[in-house]
Amino acid sequence: MKKCLIIADFLSDENRKMINTTAEQLGYSAFFYDDYHQSADGDIADAEILYTADYRAVQKAQKLKWCHTPYAGVDKLISTGVFDSGDVILTNSSGAYGRAISEYIIMAALMLMKQMPEYRKITDERGWVQDLPSRSISGSRIAVIGTGDIGRNAAKRFKALSAETVIGFSRSGRQADHFDHTYSLDAFEDNVRDIDVLVMCVPGTPETDKLLSAERISCLPEKAFLINVGRGTTVDQDALIEALNEGRIAGAMLDVVMPEPLPADHPLWTARNCIVTPHIAGDMSLPYTVDRTVEFFCENLKIYAEGGQMLHRVEISAGY
Amino acid sequence: MKKCLIIADFLSDENRKMINTTAEQLGYSAFFYDDYHQSADGDIADAEILYTADYRAVQKAQKLKWCHTPYAGVDKLISTGVFDSGDVILTNSSGAYGRAISEYIIMAALMLMKQMPEYRKITDERGWVQDLPSRSISGSRIAVIGTGDIGRNAAKRFKALSAETVIGFSRSGRQADHFDHTYSLDAFEDNVRDIDVLVMCVPGTPETDKLLSAERISCLPEKAFLINVGRGTTVDQDALIEALNEGRIAGAMLDVVMPEPLPADHPLWTARNCIVTPHIAGDMSLPYTVDRTVEFFCENLKIYAEGGQMLHRVEISAGY
Repeated sequence: MKKCLIIADFLSDENRKMINTTAEQLGYSAFFYDDYHQSADGDIADAEILYTADYRAVQKAQKLKWCHTPYAGVDKLISTGVFDSGDVILTNSSGAYGRAISEYIIMAALMLMKQMPEYRKITDERGWVQDLPSRSISGSRIAVIGTGDIGRNAAKRFKALSAETVIGFSRSGRQADHFDHTYSLDAFEDNVRDIDVLVMCVPGTPETDKLLSAERISCLPEKAFLINVGRGTTVDQDALIEALNEGRIAGAMLDVVMPEPLPADHPLWTARNCIVTPHIAGDMSLPYTVDRTVEFFCENLKIYAEGGQMLHRVEISAGY
Repeated sequence: MKKCLIIADFLSDENRKMINTTAEQLGYSAFFYDDYHQSADGDIADAEILYTADYRAVQKAQKLKWCHTPYAGVDKLISTGVFDSGDVILTNSSGAYGRAISEYIIMAALMLMKQMPEYRKITDERGWVQDLPSRSISGSRIAVIGTGDIGRNAAKRFKALSAETVIGFSRSGRQADHFDHTYSLDAFEDNVRDIDVLVMCVPGTPETDKLLSAERISCLPEKAFLINVGRGTTVDQDALIEALNEGRIAGAMLDVVMPEPLPADHPLWTARNCIVTPHIAGDMSLPYTVDRTVEFFCENLKIYAEGGQMLHRVEISAGY
């Protein structure tokens, strides 16, 4: 019997049952492990199919034909080189995170606009100051780099909260749902001079390395807040820290940084009006997210068994 | 010439111009002061009309016939006794705060659901923990006590962010826009057993004192978060602190507390998973809010000059 190895500690009983039933119907047997260390090396070496985000499992799976990752980001998996030849299929769960991460984005925008970092300092010392300038999503101008599932979900929510304009930037500049307008990145400089918030939700690929460069940061107005939920590599962090500390932009909330974990003495921790969270925006504890990744996997398992065109297949050369 | 005294430090030049023009057209002269101390006692004693939230100005204004407050809450102004006889009109700016305060409410719900207080503790020590259980507005069950402008604006935003149900509670139980259903407070116990978030946005009046009583807190499920943006008096704080520290509710974000400022040694500061902000949700620095309060005042000035029925008139016995 052909083996599927499921390495994940966040699956519900329902999730396991759905995977088991689907696998059995198709002539596969599914084995479940909470983490890479728990899974026996023998099992991994035999596995034809993996459901995991752990690059070490992928490295050990010598008979691997297909890996589905419950994450949207695939940079670490691709870096194993396992998928380079094209003989092994990689599919991801892009499309499962729009809901969770876009809520994080809305929270981040509001925390920055309502001065939560400053009020936190004040109340930490039991102060009672009330007159810090506050701002509102309603009537604001939002720009989003990355118009995929996460970007579109964020745009939808900013519009629902009465943002004045929500523009998107992508490689192609192709129009995307929920955006007032989408531009190619060439038009960045001309269209961010008056924005209130810049959201980054792009995957980590060689092409997106320091996409938000020192030069692009210098195009942002002083009032601009930056939110990054994609990958830390997509921002020139040194330039960002300088811009924050010199007051050339108003603040930042970063769920992704470079490297992760961020070292205790890293200057990003203490940059002016900067909030860092430990890569939690797409939290797998949200049942909706997990359910979607499992649905994607089961749907793909049927297609795989039939030899069809896999959904959510990662284009290895593009990196997402 | 009849005198209007405007005591406020948040007005724009546009706001002042609008008030000046309106006053002159109606045969009034407007005088502007940044705060109560700056306004000369003589001017206050003469004033027929005040635009102020400062109860001390109201106490000094012996010829006062009408006071318009830029705030929504009127508890302090009413406590002067000046309005008790009914000879002096009090109007407020209820209706100007829905936008700013409902954004605060959404931020608070997300900060609690996404575990910001816990992640803050972790990152303060430069830790990198990622697996705290997180929740989502999408699919959640929200209850709001108070179905006025602020409550309705909050309900609208929760629905826009795909909350499963948003129910309201009010004295009358009359149906209100944006709520799935509105109940009278008698039905509280039966309808909050499975809610994720309880939002309080009720004015401070004798009737609303400890409206959220120990008994009502005990009806909430362990997963419930409390958000209060109305008045601190509307919550039994001792009962709340106990419920938080015993884990009988999941957390709270309070923009209003009792008393304000909250003393440095008050146990609310250190209650479990509790965030206190210094009464900033309706921040006057939001131009939209200020513009609306000035529009309300100018509109009422015309009605006042014509002897008509004032808008936003406070019913002194009800307290709002």
